Amino acid sequence: MTTTPAHPASPRIGLIGVGAMGMAMAQRLRERGHAVWSRDVRPEADVQARAAGITVCASPRELAAATDIVFVIVVNAAQIDEVLFGADGAIHASAGARTVVLCSTIAPQDTVRFAAQLAAHGLACVDAPISGGPVRARAGAMSMMIAAPAATLAPWRTVLADLAEKRFVVGEAIGDAAKAKLVNNLLAGVNLVAGAEALALSAKLGLDPRAMYDLIRASSGASWVFEDRMARALDEDYTPPRAAAHILTKDMGLATALAASVDHATPLGDAALARLRETVARGWAELDDAAVIKTYQQPAR
Amino acid sequence: MTTTPAHPASPRIGLIGVGAMGMAMAQRLRERGHAVWSRDVRPEADVQARAAGITVCASPRELAAATDIVFVIVVNAAQIDEVLFGADGAIHASAGARTVVLCSTIAPQDTVRFAAQLAAHGLACVDAPISGGPVRARAGAMSMMIAAPAATLAPWRTVLADLAEKRFVVGEAIGDAAKAKLVNNLLAGVNLVAGAEALALSAKLGLDPRAMYDLIRASSGASWVFEDRMARALDEDYTPPRAAAHILTKDMGLATALAASVDHATPLGDAALARLRETVARGWAELDDAAVIKTYQQPAR
Repeated sequence: MTTTPAHPASPRIGLIGVGAMGMAMAQRLRERGHAVWSRDVRPEADVQARAAGITVCASPRELAAATDIVFVIVVNAAQIDEVLFGADGAIHASAGARTVVLCSTIAPQDTVRFAAQLAAHGLACVDAPISGGPVRARAGAMSMMIAAPAATLAPWRTVLADLAEKRFVVGEAIGDAAKAKLVNNLLAGVNLVAGAEALALSAKLGLDPRAMYDLIRASSGASWVFEDRMARALDEDYTPPRAAAHILTKDMGLATALAASVDHATPLGDAALARLRETVARGWAELDDAAVIKTYQQPAR
Repeated sequence: MTTTPAHPASPRIGLIGVGAMGMAMAQRLRERGHAVWSRDVRPEADVQARAAGITVCASPRELAAATDIVFVIVVNAAQIDEVLFGADGAIHASAGARTVVLCSTIAPQDTVRFAAQLAAHGLACVDAPISGGPVRARAGAMSMMIAAPAATLAPWRTVLADLAEKRFVVGEAIGDAAKAKLVNNLLAGVNLVAGAEALALSAKLGLDPRAMYDLIRASSGASWVFEDRMARALDEDYTPPRAAAHILTKDMGLATALAASVDHATPLGDAALARLRETVARGWAELDDAAVIKTYQQPAR
């Protein structure tokens, strides 16, 4: 007898790391009628979670014990290591969740390593990075890249569908979704910096930046990230960040390293990363990544 | 008395340069019930024009004499010089069109120069580069950047609306639309090369490129040019080109030069231009610009 069935009809869902994306996902799951638990190191996240009807846990271990499936949406691999395998990590729960879904953008080799460590503790892993930003996540309209054995995924189809309108099952090999995510982010990062390069140029040429924003959105220069981020740049709306500059900088670093590992040159990725690193170095790491436009508006001496 | 009213209810429309874009525009105008004349140096363009019910002219002069408004959609400033001011140029028509619409992507200073030369011959100029590609042009769904005095534009609102669903009046100063177009193309060029960089990387990582194409289209890496051009790259569909690599290379060169003229750094534009120049140098100038992906798939030794 167990109180946590393997394929529960009403799964208890845990989220570790309820920042902008994780909180939007948690709220979306609540809205879809799920019971949701959260764990975050920031007290303000707990306040927000409680207000949304989410049960707040004091540790990843406590969260894992109370739930059937755990989504991890922390910032990087070091944080995943801590929340899963640290002293109060999820693996130390004696009962509860048997499946861990890794949603953070990390290096594929880290995903593979975490999956092996989880397997050693009898836990299944889903490699499932996400894309689209908090607004889409809140509406269930984000996209999710998924790699995991079909048997691991089978019980969770409804939960994943509730979370992400667009789900791309890249394959069964853990790590392939992480690779797909980094490729996407490499491109999003270049499109973002290129958009900043173009919009800042418009102003220097004496063209109206808002008119140019509308023009480009309707022309061949249009991109999802241009439309999303340059709207913020026009308003100088960088705080609080919807996506902080240091996070994209980290993602782009992982993506260019991944490319280098297969001898693939990324001249555009490298150029975009250089601008993002400049953004971080000049003290704008915690601003929205749209603030990369400031490196063009206020060139370094 | 004159047989060519200044604001004709049924204007006779001429197009000089009926390549992929010009022909699509001419066909669109025919479909909207306009009488259309064309001039092109390529005999195959004449065959196509006649099949579409377009009256073929033997010279720009003849075309200008027969029409009320002339659209110029040739490849570059040298060709504009020739078709307007050459021995058989449009300015030598003793009657006919009094308005010339420059749709080519050229340097803003050339647009300004052409407008001044036209004015010296009593002709009005509209600075009106276009964007979106032949498929959109054929459907009247392309976009048009427009700069001209309001009085110059007034008689032609219906014709312009028939041609371009999205019209952006950038201002009254001739040259400003040319600037806006180059800024847009700079961004489109970077987005294209970045898309190629990412899609070629997908293959090297062992990910399925078609699955990655679908994934990126629905994720934060999405862009108009990625969706359009990388579909061709997946099919290795580079001939005939819908937009030849040498044309985008020329546009990007103009755009980076324009940026340099106002001391605006374009590290991403420069990196994309280097890949496009490599595409041209390796013999792929006449292929579709999507063929820039070959520089990633077949790196130079």
